[in-house]
Amino acid sequence: MESFKIYDTYTREIRSFAPLNPPFAGIYICGPTVYGHPHLGHARGPIVFDVLHRYLTHLNYKVRFVRNITDVGHLVNDADEGEDKIAKKARLDQVEPMEIAQFYTDSYHRMLNALNVLPASIEPRASGHIIEQIEMIQVIMDKGFAYESNGSVYFDVPGYSKTHDYGRLSGRVLEELIAGAGNEARELEGQDEKRNPADFALWKKAGPEHIMQWNSPWSRGFPGWHIECSAMSRKYLGDTFDIHGGGMDLLFPHHESEIAQSMACNSKQPAKYWIHHNMITVNGQKMAKSLGNGISIDEFFSGEHTLLEKAYSPMTLKFFILQAHYRGTLDFSNEALQASEKGLNRLLNATETLKQIKASPGSGVDANALKQKCYDALNEDLNTPILIANLFEIVTLVNNLASGNETIDENGLEVLKTTLNAFVFDILGLKTEKPVQTDKIDGLMQLLITMRNDAKAQKNYALSDEIRNKLDELGFEIKDGKEGTSYSITS
Amino acid sequence: MESFKIYDTYTREIRSFAPLNPPFAGIYICGPTVYGHPHLGHARGPIVFDVLHRYLTHLNYKVRFVRNITDVGHLVNDADEGEDKIAKKARLDQVEPMEIAQFYTDSYHRMLNALNVLPASIEPRASGHIIEQIEMIQVIMDKGFAYESNGSVYFDVPGYSKTHDYGRLSGRVLEELIAGAGNEARELEGQDEKRNPADFALWKKAGPEHIMQWNSPWSRGFPGWHIECSAMSRKYLGDTFDIHGGGMDLLFPHHESEIAQSMACNSKQPAKYWIHHNMITVNGQKMAKSLGNGISIDEFFSGEHTLLEKAYSPMTLKFFILQAHYRGTLDFSNEALQASEKGLNRLLNATETLKQIKASPGSGVDANALKQKCYDALNEDLNTPILIANLFEIVTLVNNLASGNETIDENGLEVLKTTLNAFVFDILGLKTEKPVQTDKIDGLMQLLITMRNDAKAQKNYALSDEIRNKLDELGFEIKDGKEGTSYSITS
Repeated sequence: MESFKIYDTYTREIRSFAPLNPPFAGIYICGPTVYGHPHLGHARGPIVFDVLHRYLTHLNYKVRFVRNITDVGHLVNDADEGEDKIAKKARLDQVEPMEIAQFYTDSYHRMLNALNVLPASIEPRASGHIIEQIEMIQVIMDKGFAYESNGSVYFDVPGYSKTHDYGRLSGRVLEELIAGAGNEARELEGQDEKRNPADFALWKKAGPEHIMQWNSPWSRGFPGWHIECSAMSRKYLGDTFDIHGGGMDLLFPHHESEIAQSMACNSKQPAKYWIHHNMITVNGQKMAKSLGNGISIDEFFSGEHTLLEKAYSPMTLKFFILQAHYRGTLDFSNEALQASEKGLNRLLNATETLKQIKASPGSGVDANALKQKCYDALNEDLNTPILIANLFEIVTLVNNLASGNETIDENGLEVLKTTLNAFVFDILGLKTEKPVQTDKIDGLMQLLITMRNDAKAQKNYALSDEIRNKLDELGFEIKDGKEGTSYSITS
Repeated sequence: MESFKIYDTYTREIRSFAPLNPPFAGIYICGPTVYGHPHLGHARGPIVFDVLHRYLTHLNYKVRFVRNITDVGHLVNDADEGEDKIAKKARLDQVEPMEIAQFYTDSYHRMLNALNVLPASIEPRASGHIIEQIEMIQVIMDKGFAYESNGSVYFDVPGYSKTHDYGRLSGRVLEELIAGAGNEARELEGQDEKRNPADFALWKKAGPEHIMQWNSPWSRGFPGWHIECSAMSRKYLGDTFDIHGGGMDLLFPHHESEIAQSMACNSKQPAKYWIHHNMITVNGQKMAKSLGNGISIDEFFSGEHTLLEKAYSPMTLKFFILQAHYRGTLDFSNEALQASEKGLNRLLNATETLKQIKASPGSGVDANALKQKCYDALNEDLNTPILIANLFEIVTLVNNLASGNETIDENGLEVLKTTLNAFVFDILGLKTEKPVQTDKIDGLMQLLITMRNDAKAQKNYALSDEIRNKLDELGFEIKDGKEGTSYSITS
């Protein structure tokens, strides 16, 4: 088995991947808060973690991939006060909050499907796991790490920090957090319920304006944003599982709080490895719905946005994202996307060309070395840009083989085919995109109809009949009418 | 507004549809228990209720369409003892039950998508509404209609029947139920917990073999099968809503029990109209996974099943189902499907032909009468076969207009276009299916390459160059090589 290494944000080092219960690998990814259509920035996480999912599967791990849907509890300022993001959208649209959640969950799924992202093994919804969250909160309270205040329950960060390292994952300094720095919600109403500004909500008592609420031992209310992931990852993957992933913007407070909750409840770290991908930027600024610079995925695929020179296909977007290492920022530009589009076509064309290559008795090619370089790239912290550079070496080789400038023997050819197909299709999850073929068929038909009518005009009935018969075989029926020749597709 | 009438199973009569809060219309449909790939029988409900959804939307109702996913609580014998269907499949496959539920939910969604069924407004999962179910059970107990027995809770059918009409919906005779007739589970272990064989489970205490269990006031356990729909319909549509739908096989015990639960809890009927579709049969026998005669949807679309003479497309299946009235049985046969395929093509071709028809000053056609007949068909109990017969009248007319045997004026033409498109695409939800066009493009290109090479051989360079240039414009590049001429798609 290949030796896969990955950067662990918690220890800040690249570590060999050794799952807790091989051959099983458990992965938990923080999914979307479903209150708007996904934008370009939402595409990076699914694509990065899909390659992780696919590569571990390729390495024969049995992967359980859990990605949640946040449909309750995520408040508009990402802190502990204010309106629920989904309930706010529901109020504005005058519908039931769960209609909003369903509508945008469907939209998110369409994006994943277009991007050829493998489905999650389990996709739990926060609102569907209220019992599990309440039970976990109760254990945290029983162990003395949380307190009730006016029907709400808060995690006691200073108390927890006496024996635990709060801030370790995100690199926040505890003293600053306790003094109130970095806590965006500190000026907001309800802060007086907290003993300390660094504390965060596990359960919130609902005011009459909150549409989504459930009974609990403390109040009719709703869970805090962070507890859902702790409760759902624990339910489906166990107290400690292999990989927890998400965007870097979730490091604090979300993932930091998840660790605190799991440690407080289970006395165990939730994840053995923490993996975070970086953001997509537009002129250096993070792309986000809340910043108003987001290009929605549908706009991106249709080209209808002022920032876009043209439409880009799902696979072009995927390739663009894979050409950057997941831990670096990726700046949006039309130039880069158009380069990706060309590169992708070259790569996919090479997979077609390779099918037609014939083996020779001799070979000037070390296919096994090329194959190993591809594995090495992903084994060293999932380095997709280096992998793609190596794949382009194979593309050059394939084109040299096609033109006769290079030869390869049967074994080498087999290795080359297996390698290229495995990495392009199975691991990177790229696919050949069918162009809009209706237009093409129509164009070809118009050309043939013109040629057939020209032949008729020149009394070359042998040719005009031949065209008609061939088209008939192909399932096209030509009809001559008063307003010219039309055709229909018969089969 | 058109006067829509529908058969109500509860009153056994065709009644005018008058929603509780117009223009809103609330619909709850019993969705699948997700432990296997959907088979042909699973397609009928979604298609029938999709037409209802689409038609009410067309009539300007604002429809909230709720269809649940049963991912817990449905036991293998459809009664109150035995293993959970999903947990059993999970045990056999050695995975977490929620992986089974997710996998087959995804499969179900693929079917709905292929059949062009509109997405549900809300798609609640039973396991995600345990709190709501526990709360409803508690109210039923508080009102004296249920009792605890050994950690399980049962609905008291004889007690309820003193003041309510249990058996009214399904036409079962209470005395027979109380005597134990018609209760398939009466011989099974655990029946001694019930005071009467007619009683049904609201909550079941979990044995160690049950993987899915939650805390409740009575035991660690799981909800009965029937309570989920009562709790979720109430949560998302209110105590009483407009339409409850499902298959006729759900009349007893599922829907009968739903009515009892809602009446006991809310003192209100849950639904104003109960709509039930009939089954698909194979040689007169119901098609069901449990009977082993199910053709899976994927097999149906691929043609890979001994009962199938060929593959049938999703729209062919949809049209086949729509050609029968939803309350009649529909017997599977290859002959009927092939007739549907031809009929569908005729219908869709007419929508294309109609685009090219030009208006005349005079008209021999009463387009408004044709339009009204289409509405009348659906208004009288959603009669899709009569609607389709009326649409074929329009098809005949369109073909007569195309051949010049009939004329139509501008107003009439507009009415005809609006009517045909509305009923075919918006209301029946049919769509033009793209054939596998890659083969067609390849066939056309081979024909053009042959013609271009012939022209070159005849030194007709004007023609050969013209073909090459036209193909270049269309995004095809021709390459002459040692092994003949090939082409690639450049854009």
